[in-house]
Amino acid sequence: MTIDIVSENKSHGGRQLVVKHPSAACRCDMTFSIFLPPQADRDGKLPVVWYLAGLTCTHANVTEKGGYRAACAELGLVFVAPDTSPRGDDVPDGEGYDFGKGAGFYVDATQDPWAQNYRMWSYVTEELPALVAAEFPVDMERQGITGHSMGGHGALTVALNFPGRFRTVSAFAPIVAPSQVPWGQKALAGYLGNDARTWRKHDAVALIEDGARLKELLVDVGTADQFLDQELRPELLESACDEAGIALTLRRQPGYDHSYYFVSTFMAEHLRWHGQRLG
Amino acid sequence: MTIDIVSENKSHGGRQLVVKHPSAACRCDMTFSIFLPPQADRDGKLPVVWYLAGLTCTHANVTEKGGYRAACAELGLVFVAPDTSPRGDDVPDGEGYDFGKGAGFYVDATQDPWAQNYRMWSYVTEELPALVAAEFPVDMERQGITGHSMGGHGALTVALNFPGRFRTVSAFAPIVAPSQVPWGQKALAGYLGNDARTWRKHDAVALIEDGARLKELLVDVGTADQFLDQELRPELLESACDEAGIALTLRRQPGYDHSYYFVSTFMAEHLRWHGQRLG
Repeated sequence: MTIDIVSENKSHGGRQLVVKHPSAACRCDMTFSIFLPPQADRDGKLPVVWYLAGLTCTHANVTEKGGYRAACAELGLVFVAPDTSPRGDDVPDGEGYDFGKGAGFYVDATQDPWAQNYRMWSYVTEELPALVAAEFPVDMERQGITGHSMGGHGALTVALNFPGRFRTVSAFAPIVAPSQVPWGQKALAGYLGNDARTWRKHDAVALIEDGARLKELLVDVGTADQFLDQELRPELLESACDEAGIALTLRRQPGYDHSYYFVSTFMAEHLRWHGQRLG
Repeated sequence: MTIDIVSENKSHGGRQLVVKHPSAACRCDMTFSIFLPPQADRDGKLPVVWYLAGLTCTHANVTEKGGYRAACAELGLVFVAPDTSPRGDDVPDGEGYDFGKGAGFYVDATQDPWAQNYRMWSYVTEELPALVAAEFPVDMERQGITGHSMGGHGALTVALNFPGRFRTVSAFAPIVAPSQVPWGQKALAGYLGNDARTWRKHDAVALIEDGARLKELLVDVGTADQFLDQELRPELLESACDEAGIALTLRRQPGYDHSYYFVSTFMAEHLRWHGQRLG
């Protein structure tokens, strides 16, 4: 595999890299960031936490504003943050900030003209893990996954579709039931077509209803999140987990909004939660 | 005084504000950020740390990438980050990233056309402190100051010119002797004219040579900083402090560059150093 190190900066004793590579899944160049904590230079393979970002984001948002490096350096965690969609002049774009570039929704599109490039499901579940495992000192037996908003949706649906792959799962202000909310309905219909049966694999609440399971799950949402009632609807996840016997820790954080000011506040706690379980 | 709260986000239990106000000093609207830690709602007036930013920056760089909020929340410190120059369509701009907008160098310009708006010295030493003291719960008897690069220059020169005002002073990769380096010579000649005697008040090493004193000083620089040898020259500060009996803690951090990956790595340590002394 060919990778190009776009930048490397020492930070918190480790190395923050930005990496570009040609993606077979997305048929374009893709960029991700990876933080290698100081332990990477001496302790062999380390546990890895995948972070999937939300609408409009690239790898850069959490890399600059997420505040994860101090905790990763303390805990010995590798942290990988992919982009949210295919990119480039040859990639078709959608209408609005919530469809097309920056809004891949972590699905493999089946509809034209999206099916050619919008294959973020294959990218984040197959191509990127294989590349990271081949190029960096990560222990693929100790993986955790998290994400924010659309990326929280991604983290939950990936984890529910690959039982046993992730020891730990958490999310910040996730979209938990895209089939039932405007952002998700627009994206799933656009990328997958109008047959809502094809959407269930990409809807955390539907997956749980259909029998998918996680052992435990940590979710934070802010009570002042402007998307809470219409797009996120954590109460739907709460009911589904309750019904299914999934140990959900859902924390409604008073006064917090949807921004990285919220994400960065609770990032260290999430990483500590992952780190304790990943060993 | 009229202030406009541009944004307010809860973070780390406190409130991150961005504030805009008409500036009499700079004759334009100015924007700064202020973080009020959770203690601000209950403990009366709190100690305040001023952060002056470097070339090309606004208030936003450290606000988004500086990683100060967790430590400020832990220590009960207010953190204020002003812009680096006057702004607006009516404000003249210079050639290059190192002169004009984003590059005010914390001086009151005397040369046309800069003298009208480029009055960052008055802004950060008079107007902004008066505004912050009037509008927010800060204890002006417990002030610390720090900054990065051009802002490290600002922090050092402000502290050296106002003995007794700041209990604590630190800097990240500061320009310590602008009279002797290209960035500083361009800026000081451009804003203040060619009489280098007028520059000494704005040169930390010259100020120390001329008798200004600090009790103690913490400075971090990265050994991989691309500006270390030509623009920063920490060895000149080291000699001046040694000669003057100033207790300088100069840490050459191996492998770190000039970026916010460096600043954010050592931010918590600087704030702890300030916090311990500000009480």
